[in-house]
This record gives sequence, C-alpha cells and structure tokens, in this order.
Amino acid sequence: MSSEQPQSPTAQGLDPLALAYTASLDVDRRLYNYDIQQSITHARMLAKQGIISQEDAQAIVAGLEEVRSEIEADAFPWRQELEDVHMNIEARLREKIGEAAGRVHTARSRNDQVVTGLRLYVKDAINDAVTALKDLRLVLLHLAEANQSTIMPGYTHLQRAQPLLLAHHLLAYFEMFSRDAERFLDCYKRADVLPLGSAALAGAAYPLDREFVARELGFARVSENSMDAVADRDFVVEYEATAAICMMHVSRLAEEIVLWASSEFGFVQLDLAFATGSSIMPQKRNPDVAELARGKAGRVFGNLISILTTLKGLPLAYNRDLQEDKAGLFDTVDTLLSTLHVFGAMLPTLRFDAPRLRQAAEGGYALATDLADYLARKGLPFRDAHAAVIALVAYAQEQNKEFSELTLEEYQRFSPLFEDDVLGLDIEGALAARDVPGGTAPRRVAEALRKARERLEAER
Amino acid sequence: MSSEQPQSPTAQGLDPLALAYTASLDVDRRLYNYDIQQSITHARMLAKQGIISQEDAQAIVAGLEEVRSEIEADAFPWRQELEDVHMNIEARLREKIGEAAGRVHTARSRNDQVVTGLRLYVKDAINDAVTALKDLRLVLLHLAEANQSTIMPGYTHLQRAQPLLLAHHLLAYFEMFSRDAERFLDCYKRADVLPLGSAALAGAAYPLDREFVARELGFARVSENSMDAVADRDFVVEYEATAAICMMHVSRLAEEIVLWASSEFGFVQLDLAFATGSSIMPQKRNPDVAELARGKAGRVFGNLISILTTLKGLPLAYNRDLQEDKAGLFDTVDTLLSTLHVFGAMLPTLRFDAPRLRQAAEGGYALATDLADYLARKGLPFRDAHAAVIALVAYAQEQNKEFSELTLEEYQRFSPLFEDDVLGLDIEGALAARDVPGGTAPRRVAEALRKARERLEAER
Amino acid sequence: MSSEQPQSPTAQGLDPLALAYTASLDVDRRLYNYDIQQSITHARMLAKQGIISQEDAQAIVAGLEEVRSEIEADAFPWRQELEDVHMNIEARLREKIGEAAGRVHTARSRNDQVVTGLRLYVKDAINDAVTALKDLRLVLLHLAEANQSTIMPGYTHLQRAQPLLLAHHLLAYFEMFSRDAERFLDCYKRADVLPLGSAALAGAAYPLDREFVARELGFARVSENSMDAVADRDFVVEYEATAAICMMHVSRLAEEIVLWASSEFGFVQLDLAFATGSSIMPQKRNPDVAELARGKAGRVFGNLISILTTLKGLPLAYNRDLQEDKAGLFDTVDTLLSTLHVFGAMLPTLRFDAPRLRQAAEGGYALATDLADYLARKGLPFRDAHAAVIALVAYAQEQNKEFSELTLEEYQRFSPLFEDDVLGLDIEGALAARDVPGGTAPRRVAEALRKARERLEAER
Amino acid sequence: MSSEQPQSPTAQGLDPLALAYTASLDVDRRLYNYDIQQSITHARMLAKQGIISQEDAQAIVAGLEEVRSEIEADAFPWRQELEDVHMNIEARLREKIGEAAGRVHTARSRNDQVVTGLRLYVKDAINDAVTALKDLRLVLLHLAEANQSTIMPGYTHLQRAQPLLLAHHLLAYFEMFSRDAERFLDCYKRADVLPLGSAALAGAAYPLDREFVARELGFARVSENSMDAVADRDFVVEYEATAAICMMHVSRLAEEIVLWASSEFGFVQLDLAFATGSSIMPQKRNPDVAELARGKAGRVFGNLISILTTLKGLPLAYNRDLQEDKAGLFDTVDTLLSTLHVFGAMLPTLRFDAPRLRQAAEGGYALATDLADYLARKGLPFRDAHAAVIALVAYAQEQNKEFSELTLEEYQRFSPLFEDDVLGLDIEGALAARDVPGGTAPRRVAEALRKARERLEAER
Repeated sequence: MSSEQPQSPTAQGLDPLALAYTASLDVDRRLYNYDIQQSITHARMLAKQGIISQEDAQAIVAGLEEVRSEIEADAFPWRQELEDVHMNIEARLREKIGEAAGRVHTARSRNDQVVTGLRLYVKDAINDAVTALKDLRLVLLHLAEANQSTIMPGYTHLQRAQPLLLAHHLLAYFEMFSRDAERFLDCYKRADVLPLGSAALAGAAYPLDREFVARELGFARVSENSMDAVADRDFVVEYEATAAICMMHVSRLAEEIVLWASSEFGFVQLDLAFATGSSIMPQKRNPDVAELARGKAGRVFGNLISILTTLKGLPLAYNRDLQEDKAGLFDTVDTLLSTLHVFGAMLPTLRFDAPRLRQAAEGGYALATDLADYLARKGLPFRDAHAAVIALVAYAQEQNKEFSELTLEEYQRFSPLFEDDVLGLDIEGALAARDVPGGTAPRRVAEALRKARERLEAER
Repeated sequence: MSSEQPQSPTAQGLDPLALAYTASLDVDRRLYNYDIQQSITHARMLAKQGIISQEDAQAIVAGLEEVRSEIEADAFPWRQELEDVHMNIEARLREKIGEAAGRVHTARSRNDQVVTGLRLYVKDAINDAVTALKDLRLVLLHLAEANQSTIMPGYTHLQRAQPLLLAHHLLAYFEMFSRDAERFLDCYKRADVLPLGSAALAGAAYPLDREFVARELGFARVSENSMDAVADRDFVVEYEATAAICMMHVSRLAEEIVLWASSEFGFVQLDLAFATGSSIMPQKRNPDVAELARGKAGRVFGNLISILTTLKGLPLAYNRDLQEDKAGLFDTVDTLLSTLHVFGAMLPTLRFDAPRLRQAAEGGYALATDLADYLARKGLPFRDAHAAVIALVAYAQEQNKEFSELTLEEYQRFSPLFEDDVLGLDIEGALAARDVPGGTAPRRVAEALRKARERLEAER
Repeated sequence: MSSEQPQSPTAQGLDPLALAYTASLDVDRRLYNYDIQQSITHARMLAKQGIISQEDAQAIVAGLEEVRSEIEADAFPWRQELEDVHMNIEARLREKIGEAAGRVHTARSRNDQVVTGLRLYVKDAINDAVTALKDLRLVLLHLAEANQSTIMPGYTHLQRAQPLLLAHHLLAYFEMFSRDAERFLDCYKRADVLPLGSAALAGAAYPLDREFVARELGFARVSENSMDAVADRDFVVEYEATAAICMMHVSRLAEEIVLWASSEFGFVQLDLAFATGSSIMPQKRNPDVAELARGKAGRVFGNLISILTTLKGLPLAYNRDLQEDKAGLFDTVDTLLSTLHVFGAMLPTLRFDAPRLRQAAEGGYALATDLADYLARKGLPFRDAHAAVIALVAYAQEQNKEFSELTLEEYQRFSPLFEDDVLGLDIEGALAARDVPGGTAPRRVAEALRKARERLEAER
Repeated sequence: MSSEQPQSPTAQGLDPLALAYTASLDVDRRLYNYDIQQSITHARMLAKQGIISQEDAQAIVAGLEEVRSEIEADAFPWRQELEDVHMNIEARLREKIGEAAGRVHTARSRNDQVVTGLRLYVKDAINDAVTALKDLRLVLLHLAEANQSTIMPGYTHLQRAQPLLLAHHLLAYFEMFSRDAERFLDCYKRADVLPLGSAALAGAAYPLDREFVARELGFARVSENSMDAVADRDFVVEYEATAAICMMHVSRLAEEIVLWASSEFGFVQLDLAFATGSSIMPQKRNPDVAELARGKAGRVFGNLISILTTLKGLPLAYNRDLQEDKAGLFDTVDTLLSTLHVFGAMLPTLRFDAPRLRQAAEGGYALATDLADYLARKGLPFRDAHAAVIALVAYAQEQNKEFSELTLEEYQRFSPLFEDDVLGLDIEGALAARDVPGGTAPRRVAEALRKARERLEAER
C-alpha cells in the first residue's frame, strides 16, 4: 500500500518490475478481515454523522460482508496488479455495489487505514501470545507438580553446584514466561489506540465521530496526533522486542532439553512424538523440536533488528518504507505462537529419570557449601570456614571417600567445631536449609507451586 | 565477576592473559556505590537476624562508608588483579576492619550480589531517562507554543502533501517521547525486584529477612525463584529495547532537522552553539549534533542485539557469559541520556523561518485535497470529485496559475457544484477543516497543547 | 531435513504440531533441482566406483529426471507429511523405480546432502548478484555519460559544499557496486567446495570418487574435513553479509533519489512508470521504489543477524538449528536481486533538471574554498588565507552580493594578493581545478568513465 | 572530527553539552600514530610537488615527530575541548613550529584525513588478526597431533552418532579459522586503498602526487572517486562481518569446551591457569574463559549491526554520523584479538581424558551404521540393510548385550549375509572405513595433519 490518497483501482502505467516490487498482496492478504471490519465501522459512522447516506452505508456493509464470505470461501478473485489487500477489496466492492463503493473512502486515507488494520492484528496477536503463555505456564506447573520430589543438581558454569528440586528449576521458567505475558499486556496498552480519522497525515476534514469508531472496533482510545498516528509503528517494534525476549527464554529451556536428552546427562527421555529417531539407531532420539526452537530465536531477533533499522531516520509522516513493517512481524508472530504451542505439547511428554538426577545431585562433594555454612553458623568467620572445608575436600579426594564415608574424627581434624550432627548432613538437609523466600527448600517450593496456581487462576 | 562462592581475594594462579580477559573492573567500577549500599543493608539485616554480631555489622558498615569516601575522593587503590569492583571493595574492607570483612559475604554469593547491584543501577537509569524525557517533552511543548501560528507543509514520501501547523508536527514527537517514558516505567516494574538472598542459585541457607532488605534498598518486592533471580537479565534487555525505540524516534527528529537545515528546505536556522561551521564558509552550519544522534541509533540497536545474542541458549543458572551484560548497557545508558540532554538544549535554539515554511505550504496545489472534499461534501461521490480535481489541476498547470488565480467560471468548467465560496478556499480554511480529535485545525492544536501541558504536570 | 541417517519415508508417529513445526517443505522446495542434480551425479559416481550397479544407477537417473519434469510441469504430488524436499523426491523416486531408489542414499547422509544442495544454490545466487551488479553498473555508467556536463552541488552534512559533476557523483555508486561484486566473487571461492562424501559427519565408509562428483557438479574442490563440511554455514553468512553491504549502498542511493525528487531539491523527475502518483495531485510523484528499497535494507540486515545468532554456540557437527539457514537466505537473495533489477530499470528513466542543479551549485559562495586556495597558492599560509576569505564572505553577505559581483578593489581590501585573474574564477574553473586522480575535474571524470567502461568489459 | 574544511583550532562557541556530545578524543586517540604518519608523508609530498617549501616540510616533519615522542612518553597535553586526535595534534604542532603548521593542511580536508588514518588502522588490525589466527591454528594442529590416536564420539543433535578421532574434530576448527584468515585477507585488498587527495569530497585543487603518498604509506593503490573515498566505510563493515563469523566459530569451540569440561561429559580437564575454581569446591573448575568468549560473540555481532545501521540511508558524501564508525570497530578488534590470544594460550593446557572419550565412543551401538554398511556392501539395498540392523539393535537391547557380545548365529538371525568377519567389526575398523578425502580414517587424518602443517608453512 502506498499513498495518502485513493488511487485509481489499477496502478496504471507502472513498470512491471516496479509493480512486482511494490506489491504487498502476498504479505498483507492475511489482514483482509481487519480491513473489512474497519471499513464497515467507518461506513456506519459516516452515515451516522450524515456524511454519507444510510443507503450507501447499508450497501457498503452488505457488499463488504459478501466480500468477506467470498474470501473465506476461497472464492475471491485476488488480483496481483491491484497491489495490496485494501485495493483488492475496494475494487471488488465496486464490482458488487457500484459507485457507492467509492464513498467508503470518504474522510479516510490509505495511511490511516493500513495502520488501523495492523493495530487490530497486533492486538489479536498479543492476546494469542498471552493465551499461549498461560497454557505453557500451566504445563510447566503440572510438570513441576508431577516431579515435586525429584532432586537434581543445580548448575553454574555448567558445573554441578548445589542440589535443587527439579520443580524449583522448572518454576524458574514459569517466572520468565510470566514476565513475558506481562510485557505483552503492557505492549497491548500502546497498541490499543485508534488511528482512523487521521487521514493522510493532518486529520480528516469531516465531522467524524472517532470515539464511536474506537468503541465499535474495540479500541480503548483514539490517537492524539494525526501525524504520529500514521507514522508510528512502535507497537510493531514493541511486539517484536517482547517476542524476542520470550524466544530467548525458550532458547534457554531448549538448550537444557538438548543437554538433558544427551547420553552424557541422561536426565530426560524424549517421547517419540517429539523426537526424530535415526532409523538405524532406535535408541537415538534427536531433540529436533528443541533445537529448531533454539535456532528460531535468531530469526525473531533478526526481525526485531529489521523493523528498527527500517524505521531509523524516517522523516514524518508516511513513507513507503513503512510497508516493510509486516513481513517480519507476521514471521515473528507465527514463529512465536507455533513455538509456544509445540512446547506446550512437548513438555508434558518429557520423562525425567529421577534416580539418575538424584545421583548426579549427590556426587562431587555437592554438600561442601553446606559444611562451610555449618561451621559459619557455629561462629567461624566465613573465610576460615571455607579454608577448613577446602582442606577437608582435598583430604577426602585423596582418601577417595565421599563425605558420608568420613568419620567424625576425620571431620574434626579440620575443625574442632564439627560435632556429631555433621554426620547427619545429607542432600535432603541441604535442600531443606535453603528455606528463604524463593529458595529451593521443599516447603518453599510447595508454596511457590501453590502461588503459581493462584496467579494463573487470577488471570482473566 | 564470576562464581557462586567467595573466592580468595586474588585469583591466584590465573594466566595473565586469562586474568586480563576475565577482569571487568574497568567496566563495573561505576557500580561501586550500588555494591556498597547493598552490602551495608545486607550486613544490617544479618545482624538484625542474629546471623552476625552487631559489632561486626557496625564495623562492616563503618568500613564500607570509609571505602565509599575513598572512592569518591579518588583515593581508592584500585587493583586490576582483583578482577572486579566487588573484589576490590571486599579486599579493601578487609584491610580496614580485618576478619569481620569476611562476614559480609555470609549468606550471599557473587551471583546474587552482582545482579542486585545491576538492578539498582538500572532503576536509577530508568528514572534518569524518564526525567530526561519529561524535560525534552517540555522543551518540545515550549517550542510548539512559541511557533503556534506557523504553517508548514506536511510531507508523505518526502513530497509536500497538505498544510500543517508546525506545532502539530512537533507534538507528534511529544507523543513518541511520551510513549517512551511509559515504556520505561513499565520496564521499571520488572527491574524493581530484589534478587539478594538467592545466593549462588538455590537460595541462602540462613534465616534471612529478605523483605527488610528490599524495603531498605527501595525494591518493591523480592524475587520468587532463586534460579531465575541469578539467571535473569530481562530487565537489561528491556531497558535496551526501550532505549532503542527512543533512539529511533530521536533519529527521525534528527533526520528532519538535517533536512530542514539544508539550503534546499531552509526551514530552520541552527544556532552556532549547536552547529559546527566550516571556517571558510561562514554561512554554512553543519547539523553535527543531529547527525551524530542519528548515527548513534545504530549503536543502541547494536547493543540490544548483543545482549539478546549473549543470552540466547544459556542453560540455568549463572554462566560467565552474563558478565557481558554491562558494557553494552552502560554504553546505551550514556548514549541515550547524553542524546536526550543535548536535544533538550538544542531544540530551544532552533529558529524557524515562518514565511518560508508558509510559502512551501502554499505551493504546489496544496489545496487539491480540499477541493475534492468540497465537491464530495456537495454530494459528488469521492471518486468523481477526484476526477474533477485532477482535470482542474491539469488545467491550472497548463495555464500556469495557482488555484487562487482561477475564476469561478474556470472552476465551473470542471464541476457545476463549484460556487462562489470556492474562491474563499485558502490555507487557513484548509487547516481549520481538519477539525477532528488529533487533527491539525488550530483549535484542536491549541487543545492538544493544553492537554500536553496537563499531562506533564500530572507526572510526578 | 534433520538427521544423519535415512529415515523411513514418513516421519511416522510424530505429533502433528511437531511435524508442522519441523517441516521445511514450503521453504526448501525451491532447492528441488539442486537436490536432483546432485543425486544424479552421486548415483553415477557410485556406479562408476562399483558401489551400485550400472542398472540401478540408470534407473535412478531416469527416475530423477522424470521427477524433475513432474515438478517443472507442476504435476508433482508434494506431501507436507514428508517434511522436506529431499524426502519428497526420494519417496516419489521409490514410487517410480522401486527398491533401487534406496540405493541413491548409499554413502550419503542427509547432512552432507542438504548442504551440497545449498552450496549449489548459493553459487547460483552469487552469479545472479554479480550479473545484476554488472548490469546496474552499466546503467549507472550510461546515466553518467548522458549527463556528463551536468554540474551539481556536492554535499557534506547535507549542506552544499563544492560544485561537482553529476557524473562524478554517479560514479561513486559505480565504485560501491564494483566492490560488492568483488566481495561476492570472494565469497564464491569459499562456497565452491563440495561437502558430499562427508556423510553424517565422519566421512562415508565407501571408496568414493569425490573429485569426480566435484567436477561433474562444477565445484572447484572437495571439502577437507567431514565434520566441518556438515557443520559449516559460513558461505550463507558471508553471502548475507555481502548482500547487507550492497543493500546499504542501495539505501544511500535511494535516500538521494528521495531527496532529489522532493519539491525542495527538485533535481530529478521520476518517471511515472516508477513512481506512484496521488490520483488527486497529478504533480505529485512518490518515489515508492526508492523508499521501499531503503526500507528493505533493514530486512537484509535482520536476516544477517538471524543466521549469525542461530549459529552462535552450536557444538559440532549437525544440529537441527541449521535448518534455519534457508528462510532468511532466500529472503535476502530475493530482496537483493529484485532490488538490483528494479533499480537497473528505474535509473535510466530519471530526468535530471540540469539548470536547477547548476543553479544550486552556484549559490551560497560555493567558490569560497577556491578563493582560499587561490591565496594559498600565492603563498599565504592556509590559515591566513582562510581568515581573509571569511572576512570577504562576511562583507559580500552584508553587501548582498555574489562573488561575481565584487570588484577587484573590493577583493583587494581583504588581501593584496588578489589580482585580476580572481575575477575569472567561476564554477567551471573550480571544477577544472580538482584535477587529481579521483577528482571531479571534467578531464578526470571523462577518464574515469572510460576506465569504468573498460572494467566492465574486462569482466567475463 | 567533523567538517570538510579546517576549522579554527578550538570549536569556539559550542555549547558545552554539544562539545561533549560531538567530541571523539577518548575514542580516536588511539589513531595518533596513523595521523602523524600520514601528515608527515603528506607534507613531504607537498614539498616534493613544490606546493609548500622544503623548509616548511622539514619543520612539519620534525614537529610531528616530537609530538609523537610526547604522546608515547605520555607527556602530551591532551585537550578535550579540541574535540579529536587530529585537532589536538595540529594545535600542538602549531605551538611547536608556528604558522608552518597550518601548511600541513594544504590540499587536505578532515574528511580524507580521518578515513586515511582509519584505513591504516584497519590494515594493521587485519594483519594482527591473520597472525593471531595463524598462531591459533598452529596450536590446534599441535593439540591434534598430540592427541592423534584419541577416539571420541562424534555428535549430531548432541547425540552420539559415530566414532571419530579427536584430531579430526579439532581439525574442523582448523578449517574454520583458515577460512577466517582468508576472509580477512580478502578484506585487506579493499582496505588497501589510499583516500588522501580526495579533500572534502571533490578532489584536491592542487597538483598532488597521490601515487607517491600511497607508496610511502604502504597502500596498494589510490581511490578512484573522491566522493566515494570520503563516504565509504565498507572496509569497516567488512572487517566487522569477518570478525563476527570468526567469533561465531570461537563460540562453537567455546560451547564444546564448556560441555566437555562438565562432570557429565568429563572429556577434558581445564588447567587452573584458565579456569576459576570455586574456593570451596576444589574439584570445581569453571570454564570462564570459554563462557566469556561465547558471550562476547554477541558483542561483536552487535557492533556489526551498529555500523550497518549507522550507514543505512546516508546521502553522499561525508555526514557526521560517520564518526560513529570507530567505537564499535575498536571494541570488535580488541575483543577478537584478545579472544584469539587467550584461546591460543588456553588450548595447549587442555588435558583430554582419552579413556573416557573412547568409552563414550564405544557405547550405545555406535557401530550400527557400520553394520548397515556391511550388509549394503554385500548387496542388500540400503533400506533393507537398515531394516535388518534396526531389528538387530532392538534384539541386542532386549538381551542387554553390546554388539561385541553377540554370536555369529545371533547376527545371522537378522540377515544371512552376516559372516565371520562381522565379529571382527570394532571401533578401529569403523574409523578406518571412513577412508575418503576429508574422512576420519586415521590415515586420512594423518594426511590432513601433514597438509595443515604445509598450509601454515606456506603462509608468509
């Protein structure tokens, strides 16, 4: 779509290369319903305000509904030479109702028309993302609940650091996806503004009732400045930035699934419905879905950069560069939603190997931190407690013993503060000790699960 | 900064190349006060909870305040070999108060420590951005008020389209910067969460009062999940995305200033305080500030991509990759704030050439749209009205006349609907006709100015 | 495509969401011919080496040629559930020739197969780009030759700086596009390597003749390391980086066309075949093609970031993330080629307004630099020469005179070194003075045009 | 730096905010030597051509050498208010030699001056990168040679796929870094062009000997078009794109090191000189260097996008936006070189656990592919061979046996083609079978090592 004034239905005289280059029908066709919806509302308002006749308005509305039916029945004669979805619909309407079709464009320009359609689309896309994120969080919650007593090693630097509950680990993603949903809702507020009535750039020269149109189309408010209204694509950038953060979260979860599904980790078995096997190695299950999702993060980041770069340095108000707002957006919407949906379906099928996870959590002097805390709680300055445990670990390694195999006497060689109770230190105790808000102590995690459920239920 | 456990103060034994590669002191030094602030609060809480003694806490607080004074007096002995700002402060504290210094690290890890400092920093950076945006909007408002009756051409495709009020054009930027401020405030909500107490990744193994710490440090709430708390950098990405959108807006304004300051447009004269002249061409005033700001948009976009890419695919929880969160962020904060400040100073010095702007607005059959609207309002279908005006313009061009030079008879050759009042059509009338909410009609613009002022006053 | 081993033709048992998510047929379908071509060559080589029988090879070749005909006749039964183009072709081949179809996959894996097809595609895409760049340079050359005596202002900071020949300005783009072509050819060298024979990742376990395959498929050499061969996508990144630089050049030219076509500059008139008019303002010609091309630079930059991000941090060898290599690449190839083609068609239609360009070049004391050079050549230190001219310009501005209106006496007030010949200083002289290699002096530009033509002719 | 004409040494009258905003001294200071070097050569050429006197040239040269000594002795009085390194040096020269200092600027503008310095810098940066890549490849080669008989599992989808030689795996990176070096050398060709003599944008108005300057400064040729010469920053983009690809390679190696160093893989032990331990877990060795390098890939990608975005849509010739070319470039150069250097130091310290690697390579029916190939070589169509082995693996899993534990009779249940020799199938045989160019067969790897050494030796 291009200019601020209605053009003759065919962009006559355009060089075929230029026509192909500027046409956007293949991309914007999916906006057809948003275009029809706003045209119907616009026509009704024009009639209500006495700008066009009721008869014309009725003809326009009926004609547009016919057009919609045709499109949905796949019976619409799309014409590439008409450039975009808007011109296709307008031309078809003219074929159906004649000259009255021209009146739907009264007090409207393609500049405010296209951005109104796009805002309607983005609002729906946000709602879809919020719903998909809610579903995914519910899946995570179920998975955490179903594995509530599973203990696993927590990692830093991909080195085992401290024992954790798997449910606690999964709830970290619950938090991430909750923030994503919040961000989408914040973005919604700014998308929820009606530009129609701004005309080409200066405002329409007719006594429009913009509030009526906003109400009918479900917009919270009307735009405050006509120049800004036709030039602004912030809501597209913000959607794409929010999607990029969300895909970054997905890529982290995907990486973990890939790691966990490896022979070396062996923490999780993928269901064959979500893994491709190599036909010749039946034991091999490739985590294709997780890998692809990780890879698709790049795509969504790239689309974000595309729109930012396209908008950079554009003078007001409308420039044809803005037509480039859609292809990347649609690709990001499709990528994000399909990724959230497929993860929502895949996660419940993960089968965690609890014994192996626990074994990994226990190995490697995982309770060393707890021993230092033990000494510190008995009054030793933290650094000295550390020094004692360093020596103790070195000794145990030499003796090729785990902590649980050491005697009290051996402990006491490294600090007289060690007493009988040190022998009772175990992984359950280590977990229970992380008893702060947000910690992995089982009672905290149980509380977190309950709270998570409440949060989901509280959402509309 | 690196690992989850306190290290011996010097990273002994590290290869010099590795030490240089991993050290972050040059970058994170600017966080010193956030580090001291949280350590003081942490120590007080530890004492309050009976985890360390009141004496130790007092020594720690006093020592840290001394350290702060040293830093602020530029008398602090920074040591590169201590890697980062946190180790430098801790080592210095030990020199001052001895072994008690080790106790400030009780129940804390570098993982929750660094991200707490960074959140404090980002919260301040957001407040600074919001303030700068408010100041800039005030400047725009003054400029619009000072040029309230200036008429200029509105552009689409950089072609003159319709007359506008300059104030209306400037208010478009007021809208953009208002959205930016809103976005920063939304981002603030998510930055405003205390991670301290999450320790390395699993939560601290001490009976902490996290709510107390949150209150003292000014956080709205404590983090819900310790894994997420140490692994999350969303607030950095979101700040950078918001800054990127804001710099995109600046780049559009910058582009317009560059255009307006050219000989060809000649719409604005830059003050010598904000333009570099060529010494040999005294009449030449280069819009360097605007050009640089436009160029710096690229820098801020790049930083956004950097952090997204760095975070992509990282398994939980802490990985050293996260150290790369700061350099780009600081660069973006500095770039954004200096840009907003210098624009706030430069804009008031712009001198618009009102006669030239008006002349440009009048040329080129700028009222053609209004003539079509004139006919449409008299009942002609819009497309027919267009056709009539097309013919009229073609005639006028042939006759080398402006519309104002045509007689009523000449008008009527193209449509009998033209009447006497068409002769009165002028640029003021065209402006006044755009009388919809958000339109450029002078009374609408006056109202928009009033509303803008109210919005600024309503902000805290 | 996914795994290293041939799979059963249908990815049986995959969840429908997972199947839809992992399928790539819509994207990779366009590679059909590269897939067929390599399979034919592979089969011939297998037979030559005695690995399969000549009969099987002949059946495979004949079958694949039939498949190709079907595809080209749009009679091929594409099946989404077969995931990708390779599985579709293989399954169809089996329907045609039965079990022998299975033998084409001997000593080959999907991992080396897909990347071989992609390299063939990229090599063609590079050749197309090089050809399009050659054509575009020829167009620029013609345009420069056709406007050889047109004088225009040269700009810095979008301020008029010094007079130039328009031909000189256009040749700057000739240089840019020449470098782009060079870069594509450098990239070609690295794309021109056959991976086939690397099998899944370790090399095929058959006595292949890789050199034969390379020769037949037109590759300059075979890959040196099988792991690298299946994991490497550098050639995709490099193509996209080269395209990004090229689109950046296009965006600069596009920006200039948009500026030049504005009323304010008025340097060029766009042909209606490449501009969309507003139907109501016949004099308005929107430079849509240039605007869109400028906007599409963002898209190509985004695709570059996508592939880099996708590849970041991938362990060897094949990971499914690599499937994301194609969508962005194809989009970039299509965008680049269509942009170069449409510019090649549009540029010859530009009509420059030579008198207006010259007038702009003469205004604004454009010869001030030349006056300073005049004095410097007479021995005045450069800074003093500058000072004299600054005063002279200030005087002329006060008197409201152009340089040509000043008397010798007036000149001499500012320096006694001014002599009679200063009165002869004019724009032609100023141009002629820039007589260094690469300068805008007409004889240098004529030489540059000649050289440019020779360079084009020297290219294969 | 800004404009095309020499300015008075202080940017007098600039608002302090504007001065701070436009100053680049902190960034461009590192170019001092390139600035001095070109000024010396320029002065000598001016004297040679009779444009300035020999005395002036000698004074300039001597003065500039003094300035260089001052800078290198850290005794230079840098003045922020002089904006950039060029103005600082020029002003200092004037203090030393008086008015003759002004003559070094004859026939030169800041526009050609700054880009000449930057090209000299990039040429050196490329040479440094090529040297660092050569060193790193040598290290890889040594490491491969030192581990020539170590067998490891090859991965696809992070699942064990087929056995490999570790040396073969390492040589994959040798190939990647070889391509990087090639790309840098290609980039060098385009950086190796002298812009000096282009003056502000139109070419200098003096009889310069540009070829002399090129020779003296070590440029291969002079620029062909003065407009392009001052506006072109392709060489910066190309350097950054090449560095981005190289850092992508590093990030892949880094990811593998992180994986291999985990407890789960346990393939490699990091030296304490390149890992940070957690003080309390002496057995824990965090791969900080590898993690940071992986993270820094994001930074380098971001810088690439920055410069592309900054250049997008800039009209010719010089615009102040171009000043933004340096900060990102310098950051990328520093990041790339320090990363290559630290990897060059770290890699030789990796200690691979050969028995563990071999054990991993043997597990999981790793020879399944080889069994299928065995049958296929005996004439079974590939698909049927696969089917047989699928059944065989399923049987072995049920029996809980490895292949080596099966009897010939058991093999023959799945195909009569199995004969005695199948019992001899082992991992060494599997390796030896990958005997194609580029394959992992030990004799091929030995040959590849020899060839790699020759390639390194053949490089200058």
